[in-house]
Amino acid sequence: MSESTLQYSERSDSGVTYPAGFAAGSARAELKTTGDDVAVIVSLRPAACAGVFTTNVVRASCVMHSERVARSGTARAVVCNAGNANACNGPQGAADTAQMAKLTAEALGLTAYEVFVASTGVIGHPMPMEKLHAGIPAAAISARRGPDADACVAAAIMTTDLVPKQRAAECKSEHWTGAIRIGGVCKGSGMIGPTLGPPHATMLCFLTTDAAISASALQSALNRATAGSFNRITVDGDTSTNDMVLALANGATEVRIPDSGPGFDAFVQGLGLICLSLAKEVARDGEGATKLVEVKVCGAATEADAEQVGRTIALSPLVKTALFGNDPNWGRVLAAAGRAGVPFDPLRARVALGGICVYSGGCAVEFDEAEASAALKQKEVEVMVDLGDGSCEASIWTCDYSYDYIRINAEYHT
Amino acid sequence: MSESTLQYSERSDSGVTYPAGFAAGSARAELKTTGDDVAVIVSLRPAACAGVFTTNVVRASCVMHSERVARSGTARAVVCNAGNANACNGPQGAADTAQMAKLTAEALGLTAYEVFVASTGVIGHPMPMEKLHAGIPAAAISARRGPDADACVAAAIMTTDLVPKQRAAECKSEHWTGAIRIGGVCKGSGMIGPTLGPPHATMLCFLTTDAAISASALQSALNRATAGSFNRITVDGDTSTNDMVLALANGATEVRIPDSGPGFDAFVQGLGLICLSLAKEVARDGEGATKLVEVKVCGAATEADAEQVGRTIALSPLVKTALFGNDPNWGRVLAAAGRAGVPFDPLRARVALGGICVYSGGCAVEFDEAEASAALKQKEVEVMVDLGDGSCEASIWTCDYSYDYIRINAEYHT
Repeated sequence: MSESTLQYSERSDSGVTYPAGFAAGSARAELKTTGDDVAVIVSLRPAACAGVFTTNVVRASCVMHSERVARSGTARAVVCNAGNANACNGPQGAADTAQMAKLTAEALGLTAYEVFVASTGVIGHPMPMEKLHAGIPAAAISARRGPDADACVAAAIMTTDLVPKQRAAECKSEHWTGAIRIGGVCKGSGMIGPTLGPPHATMLCFLTTDAAISASALQSALNRATAGSFNRITVDGDTSTNDMVLALANGATEVRIPDSGPGFDAFVQGLGLICLSLAKEVARDGEGATKLVEVKVCGAATEADAEQVGRTIALSPLVKTALFGNDPNWGRVLAAAGRAGVPFDPLRARVALGGICVYSGGCAVEFDEAEASAALKQKEVEVMVDLGDGSCEASIWTCDYSYDYIRINAEYHT
Repeated sequence: MSESTLQYSERSDSGVTYPAGFAAGSARAELKTTGDDVAVIVSLRPAACAGVFTTNVVRASCVMHSERVARSGTARAVVCNAGNANACNGPQGAADTAQMAKLTAEALGLTAYEVFVASTGVIGHPMPMEKLHAGIPAAAISARRGPDADACVAAAIMTTDLVPKQRAAECKSEHWTGAIRIGGVCKGSGMIGPTLGPPHATMLCFLTTDAAISASALQSALNRATAGSFNRITVDGDTSTNDMVLALANGATEVRIPDSGPGFDAFVQGLGLICLSLAKEVARDGEGATKLVEVKVCGAATEADAEQVGRTIALSPLVKTALFGNDPNWGRVLAAAGRAGVPFDPLRARVALGGICVYSGGCAVEFDEAEASAALKQKEVEVMVDLGDGSCEASIWTCDYSYDYIRINAEYHT
């Protein structure tokens, strides 16, 4: 992939309606205790679509429905509710998902198979459909364009998230006939832990673009973009039953993205950049998090090795609690690396915390404790492990484990 | 394995000197802030030996040393210090481990290669050998028999453990010429997370027996006993750099255990029972734990599948925090089961918490919330998942995640 061909300009004050030909709205259906909890995103013209979905064996009915929509290659809308996952609800759950698609389709003049459905919230509680009979049409009717609409959608899909998460970008490439825009919104704070192996996803993310691209190329681009972003974050390692990343490309700009070659690669790159921005927002807003942590593993024989070691470190409760305590505890980092199932020579490995080398040549390196502790107190911290075994690298983004992580998850009652 | 042949009588007021021909002692070398921190266990006659060791790539020098001793098949003593892991200390660390064996051997009239060395504590700090020059001989000289000696050893090897952990058992079998005794002591509270695949171990455990058995049969018995016990517990999933389980069999009773057949199986069973008792003590005393949790997975196609699902549930931070909050959150249990990499049909699965069925047939089962919450408040809680896919089962023992887990690990400073 040649990076020189993409001009990428990102902003955080816009989201899914930044690309031409999309509208979005939200409404309150009283599924959450406060605020809007139903969102609708609609393309004003037919759109190619793609999706990646949870690899969990236990899958909510909305995942099954939306997979069918993604396979059809065309879609027009997304309906999403927060506050109830509609997972493990048996045949009634599947009927309720179908009904959510139908209500959205009726409000927008579409068919139910053009409507993606996404749900997030508590597992195993029946969906209160009587509330959605009013809520979904209200959200659909409110659909409009602009930063206010984007912000309403970003807020409506939040559950334990503390902040809304959206990004928008304008992209240009010498291989394209003009500029395209990509918008995205996502949510996620707990039950965040992708497993290896595309295509799969974590949490909810909805991407829009006004580029013209085939559904198969969009799916391929989405697989590649999520592999390097949403599949590289973890909060607690718990893959949800409802995770999905959906993409709609409506071609409103009539800028054609080819199915392969440098023009396609430039699109993958742009999609990957916005996905990475959104994914890092999820890790930063992990339940109880006080900081965003990048675990960067280099010197690996393969990228998969680097990813595996990084993921093991990023999931280690001992590492995550040490980071919360601002403790330069490299022993825990190295011990986690050592149990990742990737062979390496500890004598050739190096560990740096917040840019300060703390382990090298098989022993501790003398460092200034106060300086190291200050580096770990930053809102963004890098944990670097060099395996000394090759030239491949990968980063995993995560957060620390705090008292609030326990509070949020022990006091949350079903 | 025929279980009917073993009479097994266990007690918790004795430990490593319960079998004939063993003595033990302890001393304070000021490696910990209070109490004894060096322990010596010695067989009064030559003993067959065996060991299982951490699978971590990063291994302390005592692991390398003790593996060599185990391979030799005969040993006479164990020296263990708490407060410093002597891990990641380079060539000086290896020299210090050798010196610990030498100091013990000199005090007991042995050679250094007859002495197992085990260390536990902080990683990457040089071992203060000047303290051990006095502490090791003092511990060796204090070696004696009886419950007081056993208790001193159990206390001396503790780090973040809140309670000492020891068990002793008398075993009889129709296949043996007389009774044998087995004693054991172990420590472990954090960095507890065995990985799959014998032979390996977690934390420190020292086992003694007065049975007469060959080193190869003892190793085989230890592999089998640890697979069903220490390899079935997890606190945080973090496999330590220093884990080991050691066994000494000195034949003081002259009761011969054959290398195979029902007489051997009875010995494996007895060793397995004492290992399981000790392993459950480790899980019960996990850092910050308020309860012991048995995750029992049945209805699996293979025992390995059951173990894999059980381990994934037992390691789920969302499950562990819900258990701390006494919340019957079966959605988190089922979601964790679903990401374990084992295929099953959620419609045929069942989940019971504290003996109360909460999920069956693809949906929530109505249950009394107060009754379920009360069941989860017990000091021992069973989480049961029936995959509905076969007849194999396995249990994993773990504990909950509390505020104290965060406190212990965030306030612990290197």
